[in-house]
Amino acid sequence: MSQKRVAILMGSPNDRDKMAPAADILARYGIEADVRVMSAHRTPAAVADFASSARDRGYAAIICGAGMAAHLAGAVAGHTTLPVIGVPLSGGALNGVDALYATVQMPKGIPVATVAIDGAMNAALLAVQMLAIDDGDLAAALSKHRDEMAPKPD
Amino acid sequence: MSQKRVAILMGSPNDRDKMAPAADILARYGIEADVRVMSAHRTPAAVADFASSARDRGYAAIICGAGMAAHLAGAVAGHTTLPVIGVPLSGGALNGVDALYATVQMPKGIPVATVAIDGAMNAALLAVQMLAIDDGDLAAALSKHRDEMAPKPD
Amino acid sequence: MSQKRVAILMGSPNDRDKMAPAADILARYGIEADVRVMSAHRTPAAVADFASSARDRGYAAIICGAGMAAHLAGAVAGHTTLPVIGVPLSGGALNGVDALYATVQMPKGIPVATVAIDGAMNAALLAVQMLAIDDGDLAAALSKHRDEMAPKPD
Amino acid sequence: MSQKRVAILMGSPNDRDKMAPAADILARYGIEADVRVMSAHRTPAAVADFASSARDRGYAAIICGAGMAAHLAGAVAGHTTLPVIGVPLSGGALNGVDALYATVQMPKGIPVATVAIDGAMNAALLAVQMLAIDDGDLAAALSKHRDEMAPKPD
Amino acid sequence: MSQKRVAILMGSPNDRDKMAPAADILARYGIEADVRVMSAHRTPAAVADFASSARDRGYAAIICGAGMAAHLAGAVAGHTTLPVIGVPLSGGALNGVDALYATVQMPKGIPVATVAIDGAMNAALLAVQMLAIDDGDLAAALSKHRDEMAPKPD
Amino acid sequence: MSQKRVAILMGSPNDRDKMAPAADILARYGIEADVRVMSAHRTPAAVADFASSARDRGYAAIICGAGMAAHLAGAVAGHTTLPVIGVPLSGGALNGVDALYATVQMPKGIPVATVAIDGAMNAALLAVQMLAIDDGDLAAALSKHRDEMAPKPD
Amino acid sequence: MSQKRVAILMGSPNDRDKMAPAADILARYGIEADVRVMSAHRTPAAVADFASSARDRGYAAIICGAGMAAHLAGAVAGHTTLPVIGVPLSGGALNGVDALYATVQMPKGIPVATVAIDGAMNAALLAVQMLAIDDGDLAAALSKHRDEMAPKPD
Amino acid sequence: MSQKRVAILMGSPNDRDKMAPAADILARYGIEADVRVMSAHRTPAAVADFASSARDRGYAAIICGAGMAAHLAGAVAGHTTLPVIGVPLSGGALNGVDALYATVQMPKGIPVATVAIDGAMNAALLAVQMLAIDDGDLAAALSKHRDEMAPKPD
Repeated sequence: MSQKRVAILMGSPNDRDKMAPAADILARYGIEADVRVMSAHRTPAAVADFASSARDRGYAAIICGAGMAAHLAGAVAGHTTLPVIGVPLSGGALNGVDALYATVQMPKGIPVATVAIDGAMNAALLAVQMLAIDDGDLAAALSKHRDEMAPKPD
Repeated sequence: MSQKRVAILMGSPNDRDKMAPAADILARYGIEADVRVMSAHRTPAAVADFASSARDRGYAAIICGAGMAAHLAGAVAGHTTLPVIGVPLSGGALNGVDALYATVQMPKGIPVATVAIDGAMNAALLAVQMLAIDDGDLAAALSKHRDEMAPKPD
Repeated sequence: MSQKRVAILMGSPNDRDKMAPAADILARYGIEADVRVMSAHRTPAAVADFASSARDRGYAAIICGAGMAAHLAGAVAGHTTLPVIGVPLSGGALNGVDALYATVQMPKGIPVATVAIDGAMNAALLAVQMLAIDDGDLAAALSKHRDEMAPKPD
Repeated sequence: MSQKRVAILMGSPNDRDKMAPAADILARYGIEADVRVMSAHRTPAAVADFASSARDRGYAAIICGAGMAAHLAGAVAGHTTLPVIGVPLSGGALNGVDALYATVQMPKGIPVATVAIDGAMNAALLAVQMLAIDDGDLAAALSKHRDEMAPKPD
Repeated sequence: MSQKRVAILMGSPNDRDKMAPAADILARYGIEADVRVMSAHRTPAAVADFASSARDRGYAAIICGAGMAAHLAGAVAGHTTLPVIGVPLSGGALNGVDALYATVQMPKGIPVATVAIDGAMNAALLAVQMLAIDDGDLAAALSKHRDEMAPKPD
Repeated sequence: MSQKRVAILMGSPNDRDKMAPAADILARYGIEADVRVMSAHRTPAAVADFASSARDRGYAAIICGAGMAAHLAGAVAGHTTLPVIGVPLSGGALNGVDALYATVQMPKGIPVATVAIDGAMNAALLAVQMLAIDDGDLAAALSKHRDEMAPKPD
Repeated sequence: MSQKRVAILMGSPNDRDKMAPAADILARYGIEADVRVMSAHRTPAAVADFASSARDRGYAAIICGAGMAAHLAGAVAGHTTLPVIGVPLSGGALNGVDALYATVQMPKGIPVATVAIDGAMNAALLAVQMLAIDDGDLAAALSKHRDEMAPKPD
Repeated sequence: MSQKRVAILMGSPNDRDKMAPAADILARYGIEADVRVMSAHRTPAAVADFASSARDRGYAAIICGAGMAAHLAGAVAGHTTLPVIGVPLSGGALNGVDALYATVQMPKGIPVATVAIDGAMNAALLAVQMLAIDDGDLAAALSKHRDEMAPKPD
């Protein structure tokens, strides 16, 4: 449907399983997804490069999954004015409450659209919703999908 | 710039001061804002009506500020496939950690784009970012604004 | 005993096991229970319809179990003046503290009678207690049940 | 309206201001309220006596407000099968999260219907809701009250 | 050694394993232990009776283990001026932080000597320390025990 | 009454006001109190010296008040087999939850009898209770004091 | 004394007061301090430039103070192998627990030496300690300073 | 490379597995490590002796791993002006949040450089960074190591 791409970034290859639902959702909606592993701490230049040029390369939104002191979404958001969607990941002794706080409590001026801990599916749905603002077909597909997800009456 | 409107909803008239920065940001970007008080608990029918018809009435995104067991954003999100941006508000004995959890920990299928506690300014910037995905002028304005916000070198 | 029914709602079919003790308790007391899956976010209209008409259809109280950003009890409470009993369910990375805050921290005017995380049994006992306010037989049955539950002296 | 009385207990005379909204609500509904200071720790015998005989003396429900290691509601609930409504009170270094956990996390068999921290108003509304299960006039009064509390459309 | 007895109370038979180290420690020191299951909520009269008469029946201290809204230690402390030692027990969705707060945050006038979550061994050592205040043999045994527990130099 | 002394230690001169109720209580009971400022971190040798020799110098128990990473009680407990009573003090950004965890979560073998955050009064009452185990006069004085503290019936 | 400089970075000009003790400590030890405002989110390129070149420009360590989703220390640490000392700053609705988690919970490979919330003084002392590893004069000055800070015996 | 040694202390033999990565890192960098079990509570004299003499015996930094009320790092820091690196260890009912607070929230004057819960690897890297301040070879080795750790581009 949309010509725009959505990036799915994650801080570590170990995050692939938790982030997989994001790519599945985008595939369902026919939106091209670009899945990459890059780290705000271990490959900061790659993050800066990717984020800075993302708009020009046709990305509509960037989904970032990270755990613990989860800085990936914030680091990306500092380099682009595209919407950045943060997925705090569980794991470690604090099991994601650290990642949630590190992702959502951004300072004034640099928003990160944060979803639930391990909420990769909703991160992708949010990206689709953004693309559907001006796209009636995509909006209709979202409504149809939601109807399918509703629990059936007993 | 954009023809789309953005709604700013809040659960109580007492939330006006905390949500005011959202309207200020939208005004700066020339985006029409519609500020309304409605409550997921005290006026649920109004919430359902507003959210259900928001896309058809030209809204691009809906910003929802609420405190404590902050259900407003989730309730709105259940009635629309527009992007819903949740602003957990501080206050009460738990000072917003309750509102944060009640806003961000949404179930699969119904995302809420959550910003920081009391992050009304960033909620509006996020809405502008969504509108700027396909709007070069708005994207340029966002970049200019960000440059202005950057701390100056000492 | 009582002619009144009690509803047991849950946000997802996955919650059935955690909510099963509620139905068991009501059965013990001969109170008709109506178990239904409906979601504040995925089927909000069903929730509004059920809650709005519950008093007229002979329900005495409504038990609602939900996890994470647990809005079900609050959403039901916004549509009825019947007593609503909220059961925060464990699960997810925050394991129920999110559900507890989202259930109990209701705003002024719309109470939810919240029990312990995963406290479905107590939710049903609370419903029985409400029905027993004016029902001596039910009150006697509650006393007898409590005696049976007491640990025996060593 | 109702012939039944509702007790409002609190652990310390210092809690009077925080619990005052409960008596105000009961007065509005014409329900007799009995406000007493008694402590699960400092006057446990008084608590046991009051709770054990409450049903016979015509109480329909018992509201208990307490802070810190808030045991009052639980202690009362252990001595009666009447519905017990717990109001965790803020204050102290933990500001009520201790009182919330000590009130709501009751063991199987002994429920406490817990409301928000400092939620005395809702505690009383919950008591009215219990009395209104079989009282159409009271139910109508609750609906009217709720309509009055709803924020007006802008 | 000491003629005094120490009571070990717990709220549920399920707590036996977690409380077993307390009896083991008392046995090591030749102090008579009396292990009983009684519940602040399910058998409050038994708790009141036991605690009220404990001093006269030769108890020196009372160890109380309980989980969730752990009221046992506080309830006992309200009925005696003997030292009461509280052991918050893990378990449930909050895994003991609820029991810790419910045990330690006692109001002015009614102390509970709280040890770590699941700290039954230390609870008993604390009881021995109390008995050793005026008992040189017991104090020497404590010192010897501590030496044995110290990690050996590598 | 008792010939034994009780030490009241605190980590900083700034803690004097919060610890003052402990000395007041001991004075009420005619127990000699020795109030000293010493720090587990800034004067560890003084702490080790004091704690190691406390039993020989006639102390019955040692009360330790400290905030933040509150190590004073634990450090003292590592140097004596006398009962050590820990008072976590509020203050700093975490307002005492850090001090509570640092005081109460002691490892096996080294108990600290922890009271509520800022619970200096109860710490002293606990020390009196320890001295009263074998002292009927002191026990009677504790009972009288408790009666005086009980809220009067309305 | 040392020829090396220490940088003191902070995310916002509003952080100056909280970070001032760091410069005071370095001045006391005759260590050149370089205080700068730069933001991981609002001026990420400045942060990357500064951190990447810090070793070559003679810095020994970099102190970073930031609040909320405090990414400054982590961002700096990703661009240098110099020791980075993180100072989580209080403020906002979560009052620093967010900054603590975002600063300390760094992934494997990229350490941040985290001090207490608002611990700017200790951050600077830690930098001095690093410089004193091979500097006997500096080590002696640290010992002298510590003696001066110790509370005096009463 | 460096002539200096680094000590790795832990409070219990059970901590060996969690602290093993620290020794592995130091070995990789050719830095002599000295691994010892000693407890702030069970062998406080050994801790005081070790810490007090560590500088004279050629240690550059001291890494301390401990869980629960983790006092080891703080106790060591009170006896030396060498840099002390604290590793809060997970385990127990609070799973390391207690150890984190007890390690990082040190009072003014006595810093502990705290790393993530179970962050033994980063603790050692931090020690290497300290030694590399004036050691170009070590700095180059750190850079090379970091490059190896970076996730490869997909």
